[in-house]
Amino acid sequence: MTDVVLSLDDIHSLASKCLTVHGCDANNANAVADVITAAERDGCHSHGLMRLAGYVAALDSGKVDGHASPEVQQLAPAVVRVDGNGGFAPLALAAGRAPLIESARKTGIAALSLVNIHHFAALWSEIEPIAEAGLAAIACVSYMPAVIPAGGNKALYGTNPFAFGWPRRNSPPLIFDQASSVMAKGEVMLAAREGHALPDGVGVDADGNPSNDPDEVLKGALLAFGGHKGSSIAMMIELFSGALIGESHSFEAKERDNGDGGPPQGGELIIAMDPNLFGDADGWADHAEKLFDQILKQDGARLPSARRYHNRTSALTSGVTMSEAVYEKVVALSKANDA
Amino acid sequence: MTDVVLSLDDIHSLASKCLTVHGCDANNANAVADVITAAERDGCHSHGLMRLAGYVAALDSGKVDGHASPEVQQLAPAVVRVDGNGGFAPLALAAGRAPLIESARKTGIAALSLVNIHHFAALWSEIEPIAEAGLAAIACVSYMPAVIPAGGNKALYGTNPFAFGWPRRNSPPLIFDQASSVMAKGEVMLAAREGHALPDGVGVDADGNPSNDPDEVLKGALLAFGGHKGSSIAMMIELFSGALIGESHSFEAKERDNGDGGPPQGGELIIAMDPNLFGDADGWADHAEKLFDQILKQDGARLPSARRYHNRTSALTSGVTMSEAVYEKVVALSKANDA
Repeated sequence: MTDVVLSLDDIHSLASKCLTVHGCDANNANAVADVITAAERDGCHSHGLMRLAGYVAALDSGKVDGHASPEVQQLAPAVVRVDGNGGFAPLALAAGRAPLIESARKTGIAALSLVNIHHFAALWSEIEPIAEAGLAAIACVSYMPAVIPAGGNKALYGTNPFAFGWPRRNSPPLIFDQASSVMAKGEVMLAAREGHALPDGVGVDADGNPSNDPDEVLKGALLAFGGHKGSSIAMMIELFSGALIGESHSFEAKERDNGDGGPPQGGELIIAMDPNLFGDADGWADHAEKLFDQILKQDGARLPSARRYHNRTSALTSGVTMSEAVYEKVVALSKANDA
Repeated sequence: MTDVVLSLDDIHSLASKCLTVHGCDANNANAVADVITAAERDGCHSHGLMRLAGYVAALDSGKVDGHASPEVQQLAPAVVRVDGNGGFAPLALAAGRAPLIESARKTGIAALSLVNIHHFAALWSEIEPIAEAGLAAIACVSYMPAVIPAGGNKALYGTNPFAFGWPRRNSPPLIFDQASSVMAKGEVMLAAREGHALPDGVGVDADGNPSNDPDEVLKGALLAFGGHKGSSIAMMIELFSGALIGESHSFEAKERDNGDGGPPQGGELIIAMDPNLFGDADGWADHAEKLFDQILKQDGARLPSARRYHNRTSALTSGVTMSEAVYEKVVALSKANDA
């Protein structure tokens, strides 16, 4: 298979053009292209150009408004809400980020809720600018049913990722971003495409029986990571991005969705804390590094996000390598409504 | 083995007397006796009267000040800090709870940090009154090294429990409280006492090799739940109850501890949110119940805390049954310095 090498600018232009062709205005196209480019840059290809097909499907079906203009509301001194007005998440988040950071710097801790958005990106890229602004942050989002509640037999929770970011003085932020399922759905899809069997304990088939066949698991459901503990976390995420902020739980998002393959309407919650206002303004940054040193002292242990930052360095200097097939698909998609 | 049945008042008096004999003033003795009684009431015996030996050891060695008087400081509009002044956690938490709730009701979200405390209780009993006041809450605390960072081979993180509480209108709050290790250390100790082998994947021996022998694992270390995902959560908890609030990480707590078997000095972080200030004041409570209905509709699935509330009902009417041996140990402990 032939590969192509694209610069990050190439990727951004390609994504932006494709989204524009399918009905996004410049603000929305740029915001989505930013997260797609960041994913390709950091080696997270499952959240990169491959997602364009889903974004485009949601625009073409009219489910998502490519001209949406988000509205920001300060609901309380430490609570910012952004109504995405039916657009993709990135522009809504961009609108809420500065008010969130400003609130957290005043009150010490603050929350940002995004409602009426369509979320299809990775959380780490959303957390990173908040951590770069010097704040510790967590974020979570639900989706559509994919994960079984512990003890049950039917998908109810989304794969519900949970992300955490910690600001560092002389390094990019430490960030983890992990699905509540044992394996991310994108990885199962990859296994299906490549014909690999899944390890035990990843998922069940449509009848609720354990299966190692990725195709069967895609028709069935995934298990939460760590048994009932991961299931509890998935449930908390449903409440944080659902009932708490007045948005859909995963099962409600599915009931409402038109099945076009693009992201459903849903909500997201981000919490940011300013460590300078927690009592150890002079010490916290160095103190955290002592913990990181202890982790890195152990052979085989590494800090979350280390691999992404390594990929980033390489992408910034040498661009991103991808198969010509993936590239051609995106090019074709960009012309679909061009004729 | 003969059993004894104690009323909750009996348990509270017994615990309170024991703590007083070993140097607690009435406020501290009552606050600790409250959490011990709550644990016995809800069937969590590993956090009940069995813990008195550890509390007493820490008082006898002079590590913990039984007359400590906590000091409350409002560090920012949404950040409350309580300095426990070297006492046990319960009195510090009791001092910080009302300011935390008040702050969250004003700003929407607020944090409570406890520093200079010695924590030896379960988090669910700390979260419950906050959720009963109508707030959603999370809490986390570190301890001493017991859990291996993913990929490593040596204990670094504490068992680091994470708890979540959600207020309900016609039921007691939904609460989960789970260790970051696959199995709680108390359960491993129970297996050791009863001579049961541990399941695969719970822990390693002192050389870092997988072991099913609870005695070897107690000399070695535990694995985080869900592989690297649970390990990431344990790391986040270290930062939240350590660097963020200016308190020790687990490895620092151990370096400083005198090894008396009682709880080390450490910190705790609690975050509370007022759902009435997140944009769906009229709807959030019923909306969450719809999610809970979906969980309970699945055969075999249950809500976290259901078992505890069931035990509680029985304890309130019929008291708590325990072996005479456990009871006699506590009675003996209560007389230790009496002579």
